Amino acid sequence: MIQYDHHLKVYYKDIDQMGIVYYSRYLEYFEEARTELLASIGLDVTSVEKNGIQLPVITSHCDYHRGAELEQNLIIRTIIYELPKAKLRIDYQVFTKENTEQIILTGYTIHAFLNINGRPVRPPANILDKIKKQMNEY
Amino acid sequence: MIQYDHHLKVYYKDIDQMGIVYYSRYLEYFEEARTELLASIGLDVTSVEKNGIQLPVITSHCDYHRGAELEQNLIIRTIIYELPKAKLRIDYQVFTKENTEQIILTGYTIHAFLNINGRPVRPPANILDKIKKQMNEY
Amino acid sequence: MIQYDHHLKVYYKDIDQMGIVYYSRYLEYFEEARTELLASIGLDVTSVEKNGIQLPVITSHCDYHRGAELEQNLIIRTIIYELPKAKLRIDYQVFTKENTEQIILTGYTIHAFLNINGRPVRPPANILDKIKKQMNEY
Amino acid sequence: MIQYDHHLKVYYKDIDQMGIVYYSRYLEYFEEARTELLASIGLDVTSVEKNGIQLPVITSHCDYHRGAELEQNLIIRTIIYELPKAKLRIDYQVFTKENTEQIILTGYTIHAFLNINGRPVRPPANILDKIKKQMNEY
Repeated sequence: MIQYDHHLKVYYKDIDQMGIVYYSRYLEYFEEARTELLASIGLDVTSVEKNGIQLPVITSHCDYHRGAELEQNLIIRTIIYELPKAKLRIDYQVFTKENTEQIILTGYTIHAFLNINGRPVRPPANILDKIKKQMNEY
Repeated sequence: MIQYDHHLKVYYKDIDQMGIVYYSRYLEYFEEARTELLASIGLDVTSVEKNGIQLPVITSHCDYHRGAELEQNLIIRTIIYELPKAKLRIDYQVFTKENTEQIILTGYTIHAFLNINGRPVRPPANILDKIKKQMNEY
Repeated sequence: MIQYDHHLKVYYKDIDQMGIVYYSRYLEYFEEARTELLASIGLDVTSVEKNGIQLPVITSHCDYHRGAELEQNLIIRTIIYELPKAKLRIDYQVFTKENTEQIILTGYTIHAFLNINGRPVRPPANILDKIKKQMNEY
Repeated sequence: MIQYDHHLKVYYKDIDQMGIVYYSRYLEYFEEARTELLASIGLDVTSVEKNGIQLPVITSHCDYHRGAELEQNLIIRTIIYELPKAKLRIDYQVFTKENTEQIILTGYTIHAFLNINGRPVRPPANILDKIKKQMNEY
């Protein structure tokens, strides 16, 4: 298991008429958080793409438990439970810094590995190695 | 079953560095489409909320099959398969106007019925009536 | 002068906690509107870019007079007053379909002409011709 | 003069097909930055609004000098040059952390002071005091 906590703050831009974060914004938060998770184990987007690999999202899922509000400090907890076989699944839990017991949202994204021609490929060895190494250390 | 086709066009604002629609934008497209679906059967947001009912999203799900591109004319097909018991599920299919055989994305949202105090309630009779009436006509 | 009216509707995704359209969304509305303005005179983005020309925004300006609200039908009036010399200026006026007297927002964007190497160039003859032709017809 | 540097990172969500930050995103960056500027002198949004005062944007202006790119670390420098008489003007300069000499964008927003009834009012004494105090310290 690899776990990473990404911190961010809710601003006006994120909030809708009901006074809570608009439902699509969490997918942006997910992207920020998984970018930092992957960068933390040496898999920053730019260098992955330089190796001719893209990791497009093929599935996204969110369960909204309660609304996040203006100026709340959120933690986007990002988890890789398993070494990817064909696809990489990343799980997310969102809660406030002040109350880590109260889940705001849970979700996941599933990513394919595509080569430079847009064809699905098996996860490259150097990516697997970095994930495996981190899983052992955790 | 109730089915509604919402048309929209992809602009620069929607497109990411890979030249395809950024993955969270589809949730905005879904909202546009279901708003028009519900308005088409007399359930526009403003009048539903005036009756003290809110329909917050409690689950969203997207399966991304291929990328939509700049200036494509999209159809967001929005479907209610079943009369809601406790919750309302809305399904979505996205394809281009030019090629309705090639699915770009499928997804769904699930909505709770909340009263003015934010408590879950059973779907109000007047909302059920409008959905039922439309299902019969279809 | 070239004038084009683009119609759009305000959805939840656009609205902030004050119950009005969030201030950056108007720049997205502008992009939609000018894309349609230019397409209406034969200058759609895809074909302009195929000719090796890009029209990046170098200045944007908005004066917010009042807030647009949920489910309002907006008209984004888009105007080219003058044939571009080095740069293209596009003006915008936003009002509701129901009340065209009451201005919600005025603004403008200024665009450079860049060639394939990202260098500023004079407006290409075929673009000028299309603008000129339309100005004469108006 | 009051000056505040807000740091943020560019993610995929911000980037368009040209590989640079989409032009409306900077207004979101501005909002983040001025929220932190104001919070840093004791004027966080929530407490200002609790005093019955809103600071809506009445003008926004951006001059785009060059494009910010994926994974760049940006500084949004936020400046109040003058004590507000009727309106508050905030200036912005955007550059990367790595190269503070190369300006990416300059801009400003102008804000009105509205009371609880949406009427323009003179800047409240307690807000002026906080700005004045900070200007003296600088």
